[in-house]
Amino acid sequence: MADKVFINDVGPRDGLQNQAKILTPGERLQLIDALVAAKIPAVEVGSFVNPKAVPAMAGTDEIVAGLKPGSTYFSALVANIKGYEQARAAGVKAVNLPIAASNTMNEKNIRKRNDEAVAMTAEIIAAGKADGIDSIPYVATAWECPFEGIVDEQVVIDITAKFFAAGATKVIMADTIGAANPAQVKSLFEKLIAEFGADKLGAHFHDTRGFGVADTYAALAAGIRTFDASIGGLGGCPFAPGATGNVATEDIVVLFEQMGFDTGVDMNALIAASDLAKELTGNCAGGHSLKWLKRQQEKGSL
Amino acid sequence: MADKVFINDVGPRDGLQNQAKILTPGERLQLIDALVAAKIPAVEVGSFVNPKAVPAMAGTDEIVAGLKPGSTYFSALVANIKGYEQARAAGVKAVNLPIAASNTMNEKNIRKRNDEAVAMTAEIIAAGKADGIDSIPYVATAWECPFEGIVDEQVVIDITAKFFAAGATKVIMADTIGAANPAQVKSLFEKLIAEFGADKLGAHFHDTRGFGVADTYAALAAGIRTFDASIGGLGGCPFAPGATGNVATEDIVVLFEQMGFDTGVDMNALIAASDLAKELTGNCAGGHSLKWLKRQQEKGSL
Repeated sequence: MADKVFINDVGPRDGLQNQAKILTPGERLQLIDALVAAKIPAVEVGSFVNPKAVPAMAGTDEIVAGLKPGSTYFSALVANIKGYEQARAAGVKAVNLPIAASNTMNEKNIRKRNDEAVAMTAEIIAAGKADGIDSIPYVATAWECPFEGIVDEQVVIDITAKFFAAGATKVIMADTIGAANPAQVKSLFEKLIAEFGADKLGAHFHDTRGFGVADTYAALAAGIRTFDASIGGLGGCPFAPGATGNVATEDIVVLFEQMGFDTGVDMNALIAASDLAKELTGNCAGGHSLKWLKRQQEKGSL
Repeated sequence: MADKVFINDVGPRDGLQNQAKILTPGERLQLIDALVAAKIPAVEVGSFVNPKAVPAMAGTDEIVAGLKPGSTYFSALVANIKGYEQARAAGVKAVNLPIAASNTMNEKNIRKRNDEAVAMTAEIIAAGKADGIDSIPYVATAWECPFEGIVDEQVVIDITAKFFAAGATKVIMADTIGAANPAQVKSLFEKLIAEFGADKLGAHFHDTRGFGVADTYAALAAGIRTFDASIGGLGGCPFAPGATGNVATEDIVVLFEQMGFDTGVDMNALIAASDLAKELTGNCAGGHSLKWLKRQQEKGSL
């Protein structure tokens, strides 16, 4: 039996929130359905945030209502208690809680200092436990902040410890602006894994500088088995200057499968999902491996 | 002082040989001049092979005659004694000698069995020593052959040992079809480094499956400091089905510089060279990091 790797496609949230073209809830559901058809184990379906700030994510309650029941692990991003309550009301079963490692980023993103943000996360985790909702905190800008520069590893370790102390079962490290190089990824994850264990951690990379696949490899080699990615490499963050697309789901699926790991993904349906992402947004180059994948498909070897 | 990494841009050879559009010697020299202006330490300027087989490389003697003297290390590829003699007559000072690790690839590429190919390489190395010409053997398809599949690491180690026994001072491992994953890269280089030392080895990667940067990182982490790459990610091999572009020079320069290594490259001139590659070929997407590099340039932070 091959080792398993768990992929969460954040395309319908991180991918779509920064597109020039705003998709309808129906189109967003179409993309999510394509990801489900590709058997990607988890999908972040949207966010419950101020629609004035992130108009592309308006109507996530409609998305949640339209999700087809099945084995896919669906989650939604929330940025505060209000968002959590909206997500709960919509019937969401898992919420992602991004808190930046740097004060400036938190203040710009969620108008909170770090200690306030950590306290809020603890409050949501507690509420989630009462409500039967999983809470997954993210340490955003875990390697570099667009405003403060390189982030001290100890700051990230401390925040992560606070999340676990508050009851989190898994914490994801996010390279929000795609600045971390693979040596930095290795360094931080080795420290975090020594402290908390690899099975309690995950990674979220952007491909801004072309490091997405290399960073994913570095995290995998360190022991991480939970990864975010975005179909077609869609992505960006409206509040993080310089952030471009997430690492493409197809690229990390190809990496993992070629390294002998089991992703559970249906490759033909994955190509179809990438093509759909391109068709819907008109702004999605596809992963770096997509040409190769399509050639394998033509040869019937997928 | 930062550690140095030595980059050889193979765009004018590996990059251009497989383009639909055949450049004139003048255009090829323009691209080489742009790479020299970017202070890339080494450039593979062309090949001395049968122009019927590789029409894009016809006139490499004109290229060599037109090279501007300076500190750039110029080399050309040769596939046999005849090519070596043409290169010598043209005034070439360094020749690259690709020999596949697999018999089938050698037979298709240079119509020789492996033992014959190794003997020929030894003969060229000896001639080069007499003529004051550096000979750099390449183990092509060092990880995977498009015809034979996965290549046994011991086969690669044995061929490499034969090259050193024949007097080679450096041997480059080429993932000709871009099939090696970073774990395989790490594994082979660790064994080769234990046997021959990191300073006698180099790496040549293609980005076929999007692994180019990850493979480069894996080789760097193992200790390798000599790398081929191709400006703009131009590339391919007419005899290797499925090979697409080499890893882009800009991508590995960004990787190395962000990791604190010194490449010696002028980033603004590198962007200009990538733009020129696109302009000349009409078929060059640019490296994955190019957008980010251009944004840094606009901000004046290069």
